[in-house]
Amino acid sequence: MADRIFGEIEGVPIGSTFNTRKEAAAAGIHKPLQAGISGSKDDGSDSIVISGGYEDDSDTGDIIIYTGEGGQNDKGRQVADQQLVRGNLALAKSEIDGLPVRVIRGADIKNPYAPETGYRYDGLYLVDSHWHEIGKSGFLVYRFKLIKIDSTLPPNKLAKELDLISLPTGSDNPKRATATSQRIIRDSKLGKEIKKLYHHKCQVCSIEINTNAGPYAEAAHIKPVGKPHNGPDRPDNLLCLCPNHHLMLDKGVYMIADDLSLVGIEGSLNKHVDHEISIEHIRYHREMFN
Amino acid sequence: MADRIFGEIEGVPIGSTFNTRKEAAAAGIHKPLQAGISGSKDDGSDSIVISGGYEDDSDTGDIIIYTGEGGQNDKGRQVADQQLVRGNLALAKSEIDGLPVRVIRGADIKNPYAPETGYRYDGLYLVDSHWHEIGKSGFLVYRFKLIKIDSTLPPNKLAKELDLISLPTGSDNPKRATATSQRIIRDSKLGKEIKKLYHHKCQVCSIEINTNAGPYAEAAHIKPVGKPHNGPDRPDNLLCLCPNHHLMLDKGVYMIADDLSLVGIEGSLNKHVDHEISIEHIRYHREMFN
Repeated sequence: MADRIFGEIEGVPIGSTFNTRKEAAAAGIHKPLQAGISGSKDDGSDSIVISGGYEDDSDTGDIIIYTGEGGQNDKGRQVADQQLVRGNLALAKSEIDGLPVRVIRGADIKNPYAPETGYRYDGLYLVDSHWHEIGKSGFLVYRFKLIKIDSTLPPNKLAKELDLISLPTGSDNPKRATATSQRIIRDSKLGKEIKKLYHHKCQVCSIEINTNAGPYAEAAHIKPVGKPHNGPDRPDNLLCLCPNHHLMLDKGVYMIADDLSLVGIEGSLNKHVDHEISIEHIRYHREMFN
Repeated sequence: MADRIFGEIEGVPIGSTFNTRKEAAAAGIHKPLQAGISGSKDDGSDSIVISGGYEDDSDTGDIIIYTGEGGQNDKGRQVADQQLVRGNLALAKSEIDGLPVRVIRGADIKNPYAPETGYRYDGLYLVDSHWHEIGKSGFLVYRFKLIKIDSTLPPNKLAKELDLISLPTGSDNPKRATATSQRIIRDSKLGKEIKKLYHHKCQVCSIEINTNAGPYAEAAHIKPVGKPHNGPDRPDNLLCLCPNHHLMLDKGVYMIADDLSLVGIEGSLNKHVDHEISIEHIRYHREMFN
């Protein structure tokens, strides 16, 4: 079998339309004829089709909250919990490997971003994060947040969605997209204060990273900011972490118990007496990843 | 004294022009009347003026290689080594804190991006990295690479400048800017292979980060890709690292000796027998940060 192609397919520009799934498959834009998610757990996912089949999906153009597969009966009703297997695991793999996912939208009268008929290739997205929750049906569903790579969101909004912070003042201009460095996280004033409180030591492992320009640490949100979590940028939702423990928090490698002991890895969170941490937010984080 | 303002100044849109430094200072866009770098080592730098005063500067619009301050005589000739102090340290602080820097260009007949007369505010940049080298004068100079936040570079080029990798095929389209997640690094095929070779274990600390979608590691370039270093995307220039040791490599917290022992932190680099590492590239990295 040929290698799975990630990214653009030569000769199929953004906006290309297809009458049927079969045509889309023949063009190489989305190979499976039935499944919404193309991919494998080892390769990652290379493309998805959004066609309004899931009641929990949300599509605002540049940001898509996509429900995983599984647990539906042959009438498309959610009748069982989903699991992190097959296509869902493939999408999670694309997330941790940073692989681009082609998004194909199918006709859906309820979605203003969908074509009127057939299918349309709408460009590349990155899987920003995944979590699970109880869907409208009452069953557990996996959800994936995808963000368009060539986004038209204004810089401030995009920074927020990516859990970077917004620029201090007046920069929410209508220009296209922002470029963000691979890992330097722009800090809010509050983030700065939290890092100062802990002398830039990671609250999980106490590492101090000293560069020639001073100590480096990251201010991490416990309940993510941006859609659909909308966690606040407030001290009780912030931690001072090293890059490793920030990534691990975001990817659910560990969670924080009510007594601040850690679940998933050894140890417990170091807390300064002047730092209130919201139990509500650590519970929210736990429920997403437990 | 009032708080230093980072980011946009209200009422001063991009493209605003000023006849003199005094006018620019009065508008709050760049306060110092003489110094090219505004800022302090504790706050970071909030703005710089580029005016062709340094023979080693390079300006290609969205990417600026800016020479630090110091070591010039009163005729503007470089007569001594620069040090990482004052304005230079302020810029390095903006780099590690991810603070936006206002860029003001002064008239410079040799620079096509400069205004014909006076000064012009040209928007916000992030300091991507800094290093030192021997300048054209024969003295040591600090250099800072700045990347425009609202870049007009095509996604592929920007990804390369940011040391992310480019998308596999055909996506070097002329659209504006790309959005990159805060820390998920898009992987090249070669990066994937290096990570597989090491089973996603960090070559410095051997940590394994296991997410529910599989192990997470980063493929790091020893000699940076992108301007002006132009390191290759080849296995002999790649390491498999955890986020902490990737950041620390990029920021010069440690270097690698010819025998693969580490300089700056304890330990030595773990190397697989099938992995050739270029001595030339680790020497380049050392010279930048020693």
